[in-house]
Amino acid sequence: MRSFASDNYAGIHPHVMSAIVAANIDHAKAYGYDDVTAQAESLFRHEFGEHARVLPVFNGTGANVTALQLMLRRHEAIVCAATAHISTDESGAPERHLGSKLILIDTLDGRVQPDELRSAVAGRRDEHQVSPRVLSITQSTELGTVYSVAELAELTNAAHELGLLVHLDGARLANAAAALDIGLADAATGADIVTFGGTKNGAMLAESVVILNPDLDLDALHARKQLMQLASKMRFTSAQWVALLTDDLWRRNAAHANAMAARLADAVSRIGGASIAYPRQANGVFVTLPHEAIAPLQDRFVFYVWNEANDVVRWMASWDTTEADVDELAAAVADLCS
Amino acid sequence: MRSFASDNYAGIHPHVMSAIVAANIDHAKAYGYDDVTAQAESLFRHEFGEHARVLPVFNGTGANVTALQLMLRRHEAIVCAATAHISTDESGAPERHLGSKLILIDTLDGRVQPDELRSAVAGRRDEHQVSPRVLSITQSTELGTVYSVAELAELTNAAHELGLLVHLDGARLANAAAALDIGLADAATGADIVTFGGTKNGAMLAESVVILNPDLDLDALHARKQLMQLASKMRFTSAQWVALLTDDLWRRNAAHANAMAARLADAVSRIGGASIAYPRQANGVFVTLPHEAIAPLQDRFVFYVWNEANDVVRWMASWDTTEADVDELAAAVADLCS
Amino acid sequence: MRSFASDNYAGIHPHVMSAIVAANIDHAKAYGYDDVTAQAESLFRHEFGEHARVLPVFNGTGANVTALQLMLRRHEAIVCAATAHISTDESGAPERHLGSKLILIDTLDGRVQPDELRSAVAGRRDEHQVSPRVLSITQSTELGTVYSVAELAELTNAAHELGLLVHLDGARLANAAAALDIGLADAATGADIVTFGGTKNGAMLAESVVILNPDLDLDALHARKQLMQLASKMRFTSAQWVALLTDDLWRRNAAHANAMAARLADAVSRIGGASIAYPRQANGVFVTLPHEAIAPLQDRFVFYVWNEANDVVRWMASWDTTEADVDELAAAVADLCS
Amino acid sequence: MRSFASDNYAGIHPHVMSAIVAANIDHAKAYGYDDVTAQAESLFRHEFGEHARVLPVFNGTGANVTALQLMLRRHEAIVCAATAHISTDESGAPERHLGSKLILIDTLDGRVQPDELRSAVAGRRDEHQVSPRVLSITQSTELGTVYSVAELAELTNAAHELGLLVHLDGARLANAAAALDIGLADAATGADIVTFGGTKNGAMLAESVVILNPDLDLDALHARKQLMQLASKMRFTSAQWVALLTDDLWRRNAAHANAMAARLADAVSRIGGASIAYPRQANGVFVTLPHEAIAPLQDRFVFYVWNEANDVVRWMASWDTTEADVDELAAAVADLCS
Repeated sequence: MRSFASDNYAGIHPHVMSAIVAANIDHAKAYGYDDVTAQAESLFRHEFGEHARVLPVFNGTGANVTALQLMLRRHEAIVCAATAHISTDESGAPERHLGSKLILIDTLDGRVQPDELRSAVAGRRDEHQVSPRVLSITQSTELGTVYSVAELAELTNAAHELGLLVHLDGARLANAAAALDIGLADAATGADIVTFGGTKNGAMLAESVVILNPDLDLDALHARKQLMQLASKMRFTSAQWVALLTDDLWRRNAAHANAMAARLADAVSRIGGASIAYPRQANGVFVTLPHEAIAPLQDRFVFYVWNEANDVVRWMASWDTTEADVDELAAAVADLCS
Repeated sequence: MRSFASDNYAGIHPHVMSAIVAANIDHAKAYGYDDVTAQAESLFRHEFGEHARVLPVFNGTGANVTALQLMLRRHEAIVCAATAHISTDESGAPERHLGSKLILIDTLDGRVQPDELRSAVAGRRDEHQVSPRVLSITQSTELGTVYSVAELAELTNAAHELGLLVHLDGARLANAAAALDIGLADAATGADIVTFGGTKNGAMLAESVVILNPDLDLDALHARKQLMQLASKMRFTSAQWVALLTDDLWRRNAAHANAMAARLADAVSRIGGASIAYPRQANGVFVTLPHEAIAPLQDRFVFYVWNEANDVVRWMASWDTTEADVDELAAAVADLCS
Repeated sequence: MRSFASDNYAGIHPHVMSAIVAANIDHAKAYGYDDVTAQAESLFRHEFGEHARVLPVFNGTGANVTALQLMLRRHEAIVCAATAHISTDESGAPERHLGSKLILIDTLDGRVQPDELRSAVAGRRDEHQVSPRVLSITQSTELGTVYSVAELAELTNAAHELGLLVHLDGARLANAAAALDIGLADAATGADIVTFGGTKNGAMLAESVVILNPDLDLDALHARKQLMQLASKMRFTSAQWVALLTDDLWRRNAAHANAMAARLADAVSRIGGASIAYPRQANGVFVTLPHEAIAPLQDRFVFYVWNEANDVVRWMASWDTTEADVDELAAAVADLCS
Repeated sequence: MRSFASDNYAGIHPHVMSAIVAANIDHAKAYGYDDVTAQAESLFRHEFGEHARVLPVFNGTGANVTALQLMLRRHEAIVCAATAHISTDESGAPERHLGSKLILIDTLDGRVQPDELRSAVAGRRDEHQVSPRVLSITQSTELGTVYSVAELAELTNAAHELGLLVHLDGARLANAAAALDIGLADAATGADIVTFGGTKNGAMLAESVVILNPDLDLDALHARKQLMQLASKMRFTSAQWVALLTDDLWRRNAAHANAMAARLADAVSRIGGASIAYPRQANGVFVTLPHEAIAPLQDRFVFYVWNEANDVVRWMASWDTTEADVDELAAAVADLCS
């Protein structure tokens, strides 16, 4: 199967697999007190700064909930885009585990604007209301767009001025950094805690919470354990991080996926009847298709209809997507639209 | 102090107070196993039907959370108007205690329309999303409007067809029933559980959960206790219900408050510069005032600015509001608008 | 009905009722921003010290959960006697609302000993275990015993040395203070937060959270509201506190109940076949009866069998228990034991 | 490093690693809708019966909490041994996520006896108490003991007669089945839901919830997702299960670990000064050592002191423990004890 359904349909990059195999030597301390994890932590600090503290965890939802817990008291709320993964695709885990309200902002393309944030937190704030405390943003966004560093700086400054902390959901932070041709830390400018994902970028199972604001790691170890995100044989998830963070494998994988998405968007933008729905800035391509073209296309390719109401489809490129995959899809779209 | 801030600024109706005093005889079983509570339960059944089961509780938030808990499994969600009290003024208690997401609908005047409900629950629903399970509506609404019986029937039928249960927040159900000149049960047409309030209608502290759908009372007693809503000396809260539900005191109090609100709306609607913001259908009057009139008016009268962005104020009439109170306020508004 | 079942079977003291009636004048600000509540707060400070902050709440479970929330982070645990009301009779509300484990200590008579506390918190404490953070004690205890000031000082010092905060469940603190002939603050020596109850001591519905450690009131208003413990017409619950805290009504009521319990214990201790199970130090009398005497006694008097396995019954005296009530019970016991 | 600290210090069995590598072909549907997962599910049904439903999850705590959620309403409680992993080593996750009280039983050797269960659930059970609903047992236990099939049948029958469901924590179920020389299903006789672990038995990261009582899988998919236990690239965790469940690899690994523990226990039992603390029935050996022998032994070997108060140490054997490892440890113990 070759698919454009999601970057998590792809397999494991060979370097990552090699690292897993190589870590399988003898016994090692459990729960992260092993040498491979120490090496991974060092590589994280190299990317995110010496003060960064990393918690390897299991999945994106677990990463986000762990990060948010470290930032929220029991009556405090999260502000995020209505399209944020934490609101739409985590089965209500943030509300369930943190008891926190999500205050949703309707955005144009997945990116929150400073004025939208200010409006969202305005109004009466006494004990009858929740207290907004965290702005959660996604980089790159669920709609395939990317905040520039300047946009991030303006937005996160606005958040901090409003007394908010900033959580950055970086399930695809690598794609944003590659798109902007900057480092991971810069692609997360202004964030207090980043959840950084490797699974969609060539790992088997590698997500993380990266605490950049040192005031926020007070209960980090307990939070990860209690939130059921602590691996016993952690060396094998850490090994994946070591592979991704060595020789910029993360960037090469992400840049490749971005390039394949660009190639696809470029081809599709020249097809009459198909139109790009959101700016293609990372590895996702959102396209409005003729309604009657969608079903036949799904017979041949695996992908999701993003919005049934307006016939927008989503195609995700992966670290292993080939030019042939892209060209085949584009040709089929051209056929069906003509 | 005479105020239009809220119907909970008013005191206790004399009949309610007499009932409290009269209940203070000798010892009685605690936790609701007393004769006064049995009498109150009987009166509730008289209003809501023989199958109704009532749980007296402490406050509106407690009533709503208890009711919702009886209707929701852990991954299920609530659909409600964006203006719903459970979303705006309960400090996030539903999310906190139930872990449930609230799916918000932007309404015109606080009343949810069937098509708005259908849109809100449409879309992909697998394990990545929460499962909408309860429609929560308010009667009369937080914007002072009232669902007609036909509107309720259509909306609640739509909800049930969608597989939803219906919660009706009846903190001011008495005002709706009085406005429609019908019984309490009819004013809650289609509801599976009603939270019925007495505090705003002349009681001291009397809220309740009324279970109309007998499938939903499985864990009722435990839910009330665990949710910290069980009074030990319950006879004294039950006595308040006995007073309100005897000789239609609830209706007389509510009808009076409605009439005072109508008198106020009528007077204000004839004042140039002031305009009614939402249909005045119960005991609340929402009025757009000239910005510069608001502060001087607040120097003389106690009330809330409902929406600072567009200069809408809210005036609530109570069981003890007098015609003189109303006329004095209307005159002041006329002065300030001229 | 005259009963020894619980001090919450009793009614409302006339002075408390008068205060409720007297508060029913005109409109007043809701949610505790009224003059009666201000007066109550002042009286609380007079009893507990100028730094005390009080939150009137609805019931004992609500008071305890609110207090504990102010003291606990999400992975922290509570240490308490196995007989503590928060463990045995609150339907699991502490676990439910706080997510916290209760670490139970088997005590001799409801009073925790410093060494028992040290043992309970000993052992491995890393992220795999919960972190003990609060010692919760009850004064007077659920078994009718009373900590002396010296015992309290030793135990709470031990707790503080172990890095624990101290919660004191004072549902019957008045009885302890009266028994020790000291003030309320002294009867709560070493506590960081006290939950002080009035309902069992002549009020209708009056419980409170009294924050003595000023570091702990950060989220107090939000906590009370979100935990569904905020009364809208608070002046009427505050009025009860004003009555109890004026002219030492609380002490007179409690001392009377204690005296009636003492009279009962004294009489029973002279009856062959009956034996006092725990030291009678406040208003509860725990007695081991011949098994065959219990049922006939329950035909004539209302009370609970405390422990069916060993035939221990509990008799609670109230502010309104009379010498005749006591003598009648004692005579019946003597009859049945002979 | 060679260690006896825990079976999760060991690495990945070569067959498991090969299966991970082999699964890395092309794209596959995410979230468990792939062919490898289907194959694993089939193998689980072969072991546990055609009605078994399996949910692969991340770790043991996640497995236990997911299983328990499927069995518990909000006011219901869990009964378990005081030594149960869910109580001692999961950072309070069951209380945190389920809000449920754990009712603890002090056992002799980690195995709950039917009469102990009956005592634990006896007593007053109304809305003031939690409702015991689940008996959670561990097989093999945290103290290295194993329930026989007859013991399981008697205990789980008692539980069911008391209206309880049975959760079996099978983090080391393979060791129990190997020790008893029976199948996995028989080693879990009477369980309604089993959490079956592979991580300690040669996998990298493979835990599971196996639902045997078909009434309990109502919300299974949502529960796993919301509890943050759903892997996107699930084929790679499922591949580990395929390896373990093919050609009885699980049994060979477990039997080897058991044999190494037996060899160790046998050797140690012949050493004066050392004594076996609990019957050695699976892959854990608990031994009381002379106090002064422990520190020097820890200088040379990695293991945990189980109980500092009475100098009991724990040695866990793994699928890769060698006879030489065992003999070296036993010799060192003999040296230090002489």
